[in-house]
Amino acid sequence: MTPFIAEFIGTALLILLGNGVVANVVLKDTKGNGGGWIVITTAWGLAVFVGVCVAGPYTGAHLNPAVTLTMLILGKISLAVAGVYWAAQLLGAMLGAFLVWVFYKDHFDRTEDGPTKQAAFCTAPAVRNPGRNFISEVIGTFVLLITILYFTDPKIGDTQTIGMGSMGALPVAFLVWVIGLSLGGTTGYAINPARDLGPRIVHALLPFKQPKAGADWGYAWIPVLGPAVGATLAALLFMYLK
Amino acid sequence: MTPFIAEFIGTALLILLGNGVVANVVLKDTKGNGGGWIVITTAWGLAVFVGVCVAGPYTGAHLNPAVTLTMLILGKISLAVAGVYWAAQLLGAMLGAFLVWVFYKDHFDRTEDGPTKQAAFCTAPAVRNPGRNFISEVIGTFVLLITILYFTDPKIGDTQTIGMGSMGALPVAFLVWVIGLSLGGTTGYAINPARDLGPRIVHALLPFKQPKAGADWGYAWIPVLGPAVGATLAALLFMYLK
Amino acid sequence: MTPFIAEFIGTALLILLGNGVVANVVLKDTKGNGGGWIVITTAWGLAVFVGVCVAGPYTGAHLNPAVTLTMLILGKISLAVAGVYWAAQLLGAMLGAFLVWVFYKDHFDRTEDGPTKQAAFCTAPAVRNPGRNFISEVIGTFVLLITILYFTDPKIGDTQTIGMGSMGALPVAFLVWVIGLSLGGTTGYAINPARDLGPRIVHALLPFKQPKAGADWGYAWIPVLGPAVGATLAALLFMYLK
Amino acid sequence: MTPFIAEFIGTALLILLGNGVVANVVLKDTKGNGGGWIVITTAWGLAVFVGVCVAGPYTGAHLNPAVTLTMLILGKISLAVAGVYWAAQLLGAMLGAFLVWVFYKDHFDRTEDGPTKQAAFCTAPAVRNPGRNFISEVIGTFVLLITILYFTDPKIGDTQTIGMGSMGALPVAFLVWVIGLSLGGTTGYAINPARDLGPRIVHALLPFKQPKAGADWGYAWIPVLGPAVGATLAALLFMYLK
Repeated sequence: MTPFIAEFIGTALLILLGNGVVANVVLKDTKGNGGGWIVITTAWGLAVFVGVCVAGPYTGAHLNPAVTLTMLILGKISLAVAGVYWAAQLLGAMLGAFLVWVFYKDHFDRTEDGPTKQAAFCTAPAVRNPGRNFISEVIGTFVLLITILYFTDPKIGDTQTIGMGSMGALPVAFLVWVIGLSLGGTTGYAINPARDLGPRIVHALLPFKQPKAGADWGYAWIPVLGPAVGATLAALLFMYLK
Repeated sequence: MTPFIAEFIGTALLILLGNGVVANVVLKDTKGNGGGWIVITTAWGLAVFVGVCVAGPYTGAHLNPAVTLTMLILGKISLAVAGVYWAAQLLGAMLGAFLVWVFYKDHFDRTEDGPTKQAAFCTAPAVRNPGRNFISEVIGTFVLLITILYFTDPKIGDTQTIGMGSMGALPVAFLVWVIGLSLGGTTGYAINPARDLGPRIVHALLPFKQPKAGADWGYAWIPVLGPAVGATLAALLFMYLK
Repeated sequence: MTPFIAEFIGTALLILLGNGVVANVVLKDTKGNGGGWIVITTAWGLAVFVGVCVAGPYTGAHLNPAVTLTMLILGKISLAVAGVYWAAQLLGAMLGAFLVWVFYKDHFDRTEDGPTKQAAFCTAPAVRNPGRNFISEVIGTFVLLITILYFTDPKIGDTQTIGMGSMGALPVAFLVWVIGLSLGGTTGYAINPARDLGPRIVHALLPFKQPKAGADWGYAWIPVLGPAVGATLAALLFMYLK
Repeated sequence: MTPFIAEFIGTALLILLGNGVVANVVLKDTKGNGGGWIVITTAWGLAVFVGVCVAGPYTGAHLNPAVTLTMLILGKISLAVAGVYWAAQLLGAMLGAFLVWVFYKDHFDRTEDGPTKQAAFCTAPAVRNPGRNFISEVIGTFVLLITILYFTDPKIGDTQTIGMGSMGALPVAFLVWVIGLSLGGTTGYAINPARDLGPRIVHALLPFKQPKAGADWGYAWIPVLGPAVGATLAALLFMYLK
């Protein structure tokens, strides 16, 4: 696989499984309906596991423009490579979201609330407050990145990805699991610009039975810029502490 | 153990534990009654773990005709071996389903709804729509197989099954866990022809107190052919990308 | 630590954490009240993890007379050693149960139902049917032991306990987790004679506010003999298949 | 990172994620509201995982004055070092609690019950009974420390932190998970003086919309001294058994 394909497929799997669990929990008449926060957060963590297993050996499995941004700031990849990754991540997220729609179409059709259907695509704040919502995404993404950076700190070496095969994808899955459990309560933890923007675009383009919620572009910058700022802060702190 | 015995026992354990959790959650007066989607999906993931631990060293633990089909397409096993595996898997699934009936007999007797009793044997769609249901099984199985193939990709080597003992069975368990959480909401994620067909036959043969649901043979082809198509697509994509 | 001390402390930790979670879920006014089957089964699995971490390097961490019986039948330990283990396991289970009572005393006092209080000590069947209940314990313990035996099969080696430190205790924890989820619905999965008999004796001896349930000695043989038979069957099958 | 910085950042992450999940479950209008005991305990276990991943290579990741006390008693660190760790842990816990307030401010504002808001900072007993509450904290912390000591027992070596990268942080996470599930029902398992005292101070200092609960200093000694006594008992037993 080329790096582009790896990031594309990995992110598509991430979003298919991540948005898929939201669809399963919130849409009408599904078998997982009402499964609750433990179901949603466990699946998002494991969705990362799957994406990392597939893409890891080829790109390190960023699957998230914020991760790519951190690696760019730290000088581990070039801007040209980062651009390729970003495009692949956004397109992969769009494919994943489209597949969720294909998969759960009958349940989207039966669900009679626009925002509920939209929740299976992109995030929305529990309490709309742009400044605070932005801070939520900054903090959540900061925790994600600062921890990932120490997973691979030279002092312990890249040991978790050497000689452990797919098990090496577990730490980041556990990390995303706990970020969801603990820091998902306000904005729904996008912590990944592609995870939110890609499916938001797909939702806007797809036909839905009425009612269909608006794209909420007024909110869409928060799950893009918030993670970007959080990732930058994590990179800066990591460089400062070294 | 011979490969036949390994696949037979491994699949029997898989179905005993997998169908067992459904019985525990849906049948009347059990201790796990109403445990919900997290209970069902966690147990199915761990049921795979157990089956793989037992059969893994002998056959690689397919436990699923769709996995065997992928390996056949990729040329890793011969058709003769695949046939042995398929027979062992179907018979093992039947034994597992029979043991669930023995185990939960008093609770089957107390449960007064035919489809509920049947749910502890084979899958049924949340919304009956053959085309869409078929697509669900194709996508779910595709995710299963494409990820398994990258678990053991030569670039990272078979490291997760070398030198880690039973821990090497964890990645596929986590994979099945998340497929259930995220993609189990429509058809109940058979993603394994033996898992559905074997218990469906056993259910049809066993005596139950009335009411007893029909075998629903009109649906039975979907959890057989859907996984077969999904496995084929995964094999083809994997070959194309290499 | 001597083997006696290791089995004693390991089993005490197992029962303190295992019976502790039942107390937390069923007793009145606890913070975990009503936590459900996922809470109970997750904790029992992890309780095994803790017990195995502590006792593992000294005895292999049987913590269960049924495990010791299997090892005796397979000729891995002598009857004299088995006797020491059995005594340690029973006494350890009694200490663990006593500590649960000390820990949750205020909540035992507030709980106004005798069988509920007893549930934090020993198992009771969901549907009383001695023959079927016995079969439940046989099957549950058989699954436990046959899987453990293949964890350490010479073909894969004892790799999961060599070079992985405490991680090597995870497979058996996952195994007990799924047995609880899937096969705990009928009798509450004693699958360990000491786990049931030790706390049953402690419950009978301790003072409780009225009402206090009887010891139910008429049932007590099932979670002792059932596991013994299941362990024997697993040992015999394992020897036959080799 | 210096040891001070490592303990400071590690403990801040621990409390941000640990107290964050409580906020998510108990505060009004959050996405995780009502998620229950499985959500809270899973996140606390994984919060430890994150803290240990970051601080582990630099200090062994105590993140808990009780752990530091045990290491002091066992002669593994000097009193001067212990003092540095204790200060870092308390300050880190305070930072983590402050960040939870920043993160969930809108939801604190909407929550109309003082003790509920306080629950996202420090522990409170389910049944107020100082002697029994003290014993709860002693036992919970004893289980934590005695198990940690055997994780790193010379007989098995420090293998779980050598060559496994971040995976080596999993055992203690699973340990804290089960302590919460099983022994969290009475006092809410502080088992860490900094985890309780730091956030209690921050809660007392922060402005909240009325009603605001009092600091409950009459209880505050229990989650400090209880863990200290439990840690001491674990150290003494460990020395005695060697």
